Amino acid sequence: MAEKYIPMWEKLGMDIQKHNQLLNGLGQYYTAVVLPQKNRPKGMGYFDFVVSEVHGLRIQELQEQRAAGNKVIGAFCVYAPEELAYAANATMVGLCGGADFSVPDAEAVLPRNLCPLIKSFYGFKLNRTCPYFQASDLVVGETTCDGKKKVYELLSELVPTYILEVPHKPDSQKGKEFWFKELEAFKAEVEKLTGNKITAEKLKAAIELINNKRRALKRLSELRAKSPSPISGLDGLLIEQIAFNDDPIRFTAKVNELCDELEARVQNGEGVAPADAPRIMVSGCPMAIPNWKLHSIIQDAGATVAVEESCVGTRYFTDLVEPKGEGVDDLLWAIVEKYSKIPCACFTPNERRIKTIQELAKQANVGGVIYYTLQNCHDYNVEGVKVERALKAQDLPMLKIETDYGTGDSAQIKTRVEAFLEIIRGKQ
Amino acid sequence: MAEKYIPMWEKLGMDIQKHNQLLNGLGQYYTAVVLPQKNRPKGMGYFDFVVSEVHGLRIQELQEQRAAGNKVIGAFCVYAPEELAYAANATMVGLCGGADFSVPDAEAVLPRNLCPLIKSFYGFKLNRTCPYFQASDLVVGETTCDGKKKVYELLSELVPTYILEVPHKPDSQKGKEFWFKELEAFKAEVEKLTGNKITAEKLKAAIELINNKRRALKRLSELRAKSPSPISGLDGLLIEQIAFNDDPIRFTAKVNELCDELEARVQNGEGVAPADAPRIMVSGCPMAIPNWKLHSIIQDAGATVAVEESCVGTRYFTDLVEPKGEGVDDLLWAIVEKYSKIPCACFTPNERRIKTIQELAKQANVGGVIYYTLQNCHDYNVEGVKVERALKAQDLPMLKIETDYGTGDSAQIKTRVEAFLEIIRGKQ
Repeated sequence: MAEKYIPMWEKLGMDIQKHNQLLNGLGQYYTAVVLPQKNRPKGMGYFDFVVSEVHGLRIQELQEQRAAGNKVIGAFCVYAPEELAYAANATMVGLCGGADFSVPDAEAVLPRNLCPLIKSFYGFKLNRTCPYFQASDLVVGETTCDGKKKVYELLSELVPTYILEVPHKPDSQKGKEFWFKELEAFKAEVEKLTGNKITAEKLKAAIELINNKRRALKRLSELRAKSPSPISGLDGLLIEQIAFNDDPIRFTAKVNELCDELEARVQNGEGVAPADAPRIMVSGCPMAIPNWKLHSIIQDAGATVAVEESCVGTRYFTDLVEPKGEGVDDLLWAIVEKYSKIPCACFTPNERRIKTIQELAKQANVGGVIYYTLQNCHDYNVEGVKVERALKAQDLPMLKIETDYGTGDSAQIKTRVEAFLEIIRGKQ
Repeated sequence: MAEKYIPMWEKLGMDIQKHNQLLNGLGQYYTAVVLPQKNRPKGMGYFDFVVSEVHGLRIQELQEQRAAGNKVIGAFCVYAPEELAYAANATMVGLCGGADFSVPDAEAVLPRNLCPLIKSFYGFKLNRTCPYFQASDLVVGETTCDGKKKVYELLSELVPTYILEVPHKPDSQKGKEFWFKELEAFKAEVEKLTGNKITAEKLKAAIELINNKRRALKRLSELRAKSPSPISGLDGLLIEQIAFNDDPIRFTAKVNELCDELEARVQNGEGVAPADAPRIMVSGCPMAIPNWKLHSIIQDAGATVAVEESCVGTRYFTDLVEPKGEGVDDLLWAIVEKYSKIPCACFTPNERRIKTIQELAKQANVGGVIYYTLQNCHDYNVEGVKVERALKAQDLPMLKIETDYGTGDSAQIKTRVEAFLEIIRGKQ
């Protein structure tokens, strides 16, 4: 991608020169890390294409939708209720926040000892190199963590930003009622933004649209859980990442096509790694594109990542929105129930996540868990104490990695991962 | 204090030997930092006595109350509604969390890159050297920040802990209604704990009790705002700290006695520092006993701390609980309204705090603001960006200090404070 999109990027107010640097870096990284993987399924061709056009063709699609009078809503979090966006003919897209590239720009304003994801997204808006930001008519933030919550205040100076308050005691009726009201208010906001009324019929259709996406991702995840996995963890992660940017109908179809191919592999016992390669769960903070650092280190060390217990992973697709009635309120309540089951570490207490990790570890037949914390993320960092205990009770070793988007600690992480894999091999 | 309290401490399950180390350290620190201040008001004698007996006589009082069938509720935050505790004949006390002493114990379990206050309190419960923890029948936590929220989960394994969810969008009606319901639930919890019904009459009396304490602290704060201040910032802070531990009736009387003395000083133009000493506001994170580090550095450098924009400071006492009716619901709503006005950085957006800082700076006639962030406190750290801008618009310099409870950076802070005071002197 390149020349032909420049007028579009200029129209979006982007910093063309800086954006070129970003694209060059991303292209080189993808070529070095993702493409050389062996025995990739044919179906990955589509997703490689999506990544190659992630700032080009996909943005062009969004701009065409906007030209037709529809809106684009940017978001960062699986608590942003995309069903409500699609019910108003809007598109919800994940915003940039996975690259070190924009962190120095953010650090000119923000404290350094913040989560890299937060610094990254704020920097991407500041330096105008994220076309998703530039094409968003509204950004939806949430109160899932202190860092995001406070940086959204600064972000709102640069782009219209709406904040949804997520209650932190997930199983209390009071909290669910509050979340219902927050969803009602967000529905009104989306209706105002788009000029479109969210009817029960349209909301039901949007729920089905996103449920289908979640079903396809779940199907993929269940195939990855087979031993041997028919697809690499890095490719699995890549698809989970693309889920937040691609058109949902097309994406769902392509994931299902890939899954057909993977089912054939499973039937033939065909895997991407040797049958005795250690199997790992990565659990913790989300990994936005192009955060492939940990997965590539794990794979290079000879192991398979079989599952991501993550917002870019199982937390997004494990549960569906399952309405118990036909009215708008029934549908909103179904959204409340689904979102309340997402075991984000912002919840207290969060026993659901501990149990989820224990169950996923069994289902995916992993020999150990790498607990992934983005630097300065207190929620996941502290919750790691309980996770480690629970895994110990299950006789599963855990390695805790706290890192940012830089490569300065890659060699150290590699050494630690290799030592961890030795422990797992010793138990096999 | 010492020998005579050992049986009581043993009964409370404390680690006597370790606690002795703590007391020795505290005593030496107090003697070195607080007592040598010049020209202290006579009324400080009472507060020096309180500190000398803070783990002795005060705990004995609490134990006597417990022996008489009343309860003690420990808390960390000005969102813990003490009015409800006193309305049920319980006493609310601040728990230990201001000393480096317990941090190494906490770090055996918790991540190191957490706020020192959080590590400190968790360590104090783990190592059994805080008699307030040991004498608490219940601990009330809240969801004001990620770190506390998640560490309360671990704390609840060691002591019964109840979590109040504080809504983060303070001015929304939905949020206030939710907070009202949280207060109702806490009221029921306190009634269950104490066996005492919280009647309108008792709640009204408790509101008046705590309002009187807040009035006295506000009176002290207004006297400190005079130029020159009739009392040192360190002594002012000390009283604000003791507010969370002492008996409220006695404390209020003693603060008012001291204020009578200070009023006479003000009339005589008598200050604790030279009239041209730079006047500073400290704004940011709370400072629990014995966190006197920053104030003592500022004073040693020749400046006066005229006001603390802090939870241990103005946020606690600026507003009163002002009921508009006589029923329990009216009284609870008055608590909702008062607590919603506390400009904690957990709120988003939090323009009220920015305005408060600007107004306090004028009222206290300060030449600059030292913005104090406990390490890894994202809420206050990020909000500092907006505070600095607002102060710049007011032509007030700001110095940002991010630190922990250790002394390793004291020399560096001293150098930075001295340079900052030169800037202020240059503008005087």
